[in-house]
Amino acid sequence: MYTGLINRYREFLPVSDKTCVVTLNEGDTPLIRAHNLEKRFPGIEIYLKYDGLNPTGSFKDRGMTMAVTKALEDGAKAVICASTGNTSASAAAYAARANMKAFVLIPDNKIALGKLAQAVAYGAEILPIKGNFDVALELVRKVSEQHPVTLVNSVNPYRIEGQKSAAFEVVDALGDAPDYLFIPVGNAGNITAYWKGFKEFKAFGRAQSLPKLFGWQAAGSAPIVDGAIVKNPETIATAIRIGNPASWKQAEAALAESNGFIGKRTDEEILEAYRMLSTSEGIFAEPASCISVAGLKEAYEAGKIEKGARVVCVLTGNGLKDPDTAIKYANMTEVIDDDYNAIEAAVLKGLK
Amino acid sequence: MYTGLINRYREFLPVSDKTCVVTLNEGDTPLIRAHNLEKRFPGIEIYLKYDGLNPTGSFKDRGMTMAVTKALEDGAKAVICASTGNTSASAAAYAARANMKAFVLIPDNKIALGKLAQAVAYGAEILPIKGNFDVALELVRKVSEQHPVTLVNSVNPYRIEGQKSAAFEVVDALGDAPDYLFIPVGNAGNITAYWKGFKEFKAFGRAQSLPKLFGWQAAGSAPIVDGAIVKNPETIATAIRIGNPASWKQAEAALAESNGFIGKRTDEEILEAYRMLSTSEGIFAEPASCISVAGLKEAYEAGKIEKGARVVCVLTGNGLKDPDTAIKYANMTEVIDDDYNAIEAAVLKGLK
Repeated sequence: MYTGLINRYREFLPVSDKTCVVTLNEGDTPLIRAHNLEKRFPGIEIYLKYDGLNPTGSFKDRGMTMAVTKALEDGAKAVICASTGNTSASAAAYAARANMKAFVLIPDNKIALGKLAQAVAYGAEILPIKGNFDVALELVRKVSEQHPVTLVNSVNPYRIEGQKSAAFEVVDALGDAPDYLFIPVGNAGNITAYWKGFKEFKAFGRAQSLPKLFGWQAAGSAPIVDGAIVKNPETIATAIRIGNPASWKQAEAALAESNGFIGKRTDEEILEAYRMLSTSEGIFAEPASCISVAGLKEAYEAGKIEKGARVVCVLTGNGLKDPDTAIKYANMTEVIDDDYNAIEAAVLKGLK
Repeated sequence: MYTGLINRYREFLPVSDKTCVVTLNEGDTPLIRAHNLEKRFPGIEIYLKYDGLNPTGSFKDRGMTMAVTKALEDGAKAVICASTGNTSASAAAYAARANMKAFVLIPDNKIALGKLAQAVAYGAEILPIKGNFDVALELVRKVSEQHPVTLVNSVNPYRIEGQKSAAFEVVDALGDAPDYLFIPVGNAGNITAYWKGFKEFKAFGRAQSLPKLFGWQAAGSAPIVDGAIVKNPETIATAIRIGNPASWKQAEAALAESNGFIGKRTDEEILEAYRMLSTSEGIFAEPASCISVAGLKEAYEAGKIEKGARVVCVLTGNGLKDPDTAIKYANMTEVIDDDYNAIEAAVLKGLK
């Protein structure tokens, strides 16, 4: 019986036989062959690593099972984090599972409804503040330094350890690393973790090769691409709306080591990929996730991907996290009469 | 590499080697040990089958991969369904994946935002009508009889075939059937499918025993419990708000054969279980799912579950499907100043 990524990959993780694992059976997420995207971008093999099917709906659960497991092992009674949404949901869920208190500082605007609903539902103490993400991160750092409360933001080193399991799963599913990994970049913890995972499996002999990393930031929130902190980042992709990434240097190192690339995409391009994924592959990912597919379109059309290459696009979060965006950009039908002739007419019109 | 439940269990399913499988890697969902519920209900072993982690967020994907695979095999160009939400999301996603058109008739009120967002996002043609679910079901039956459009509601026999895979997974994870299966009952297709799956695995020798089925309906929508069609069913558990279940007779047969039980729970009891699951196990399921845990509470307290019994509660859908309920029943904190002293005071108060 599958019991979560720590038990599956424990020899690669900082746990002992005595560690009491806090798990919701996270990980083991689908790697879905994107047949319809392959028709749009002929000549390459495309897979989608859909981490939106983790227990709280995002890849953050991979790091959180490790961070909360270690917090419990270290005797902590509470965890704290600053979050634009996904981290708060994950921290709250794992804290609940571990019978610990969770405090989450949430920047006051642009929080997707689904994410806020989760943190609240899991029983965390929500502390919404007026400032932005970077202000919130500074505050929780200070609280964790001065009180017996474990910080579980991605600066917590165990988060990266758990998150590297996604690279392990990709290698285990494909039999080797892909040629390219396309990945959204916000706080830059995930690209750092994937690279660590790929390198560890190669060193261990479980992979023969390493991928080139192609990271993507939103145009209105692209500090790494532009080489400067963004004071007021703006993008519809709220999960990567971060002006001063915690793992900035590690991401740059991973990009350089992998002979990779980092680029940016506009909100319009992100939304185009969002609709392409849902209407042509049946996968509903949150807007930030879809930047990896928007990036693939750009790289493919620019001739950066050679024929025959095997590409994995990382989809970090579930589209259900942000129903507002789906509704906002949809064309809805009017309510119609419930008589047979009206329905039949609508069906025949749609079939044309 | 895992490629969905049809490939995993194809010897038990109506497919041939030539069948082109339409899959989103559904199934293989977590069976989570409920340690904190076990503390509340001592002496029994409790697992949660969390089918909210299917690709579109509900168990419906199990049936839809079969139904759309067979529709494609049969040459259909479109699918149609009536749905309170979860079926429409699933039908729309699998139709998109198969490059088929999807039509979904949606009753006009009480649709959870997340569900509507999905059907829209996947590019289905949405036909909202004034009537209730039962009216909608009659209309799509008639359309599918008169036009080359495949009906994918649970009256489609392939739906049940796919859904029985959940029972297979439970048996494969535990090594045998559990003693009890607690399950929400709306249209009654899922309880029917589980029973079929358990019986098939026992006949095949892959399970040694059969579970007792304990089904649960919402008090305001309990036709099977009360023995009468409910004209205007009402409950917060919208996914089981069905007054005239399509699989009524099959459900009664399964309950009788398994020496099982069917009961009902009020919305208040459903919401109590909803909060219990999220705040004590870190699992955010949609309200309808939580009736299986509300039912467990009732059966346990009534002495119906013997010591040492192994119980599986089926959680059919993701809580993100219905963020409105989470927000509505939560106590939110006010926005506070983003200075350190205010945050520190809030944390110290919460730790007390």
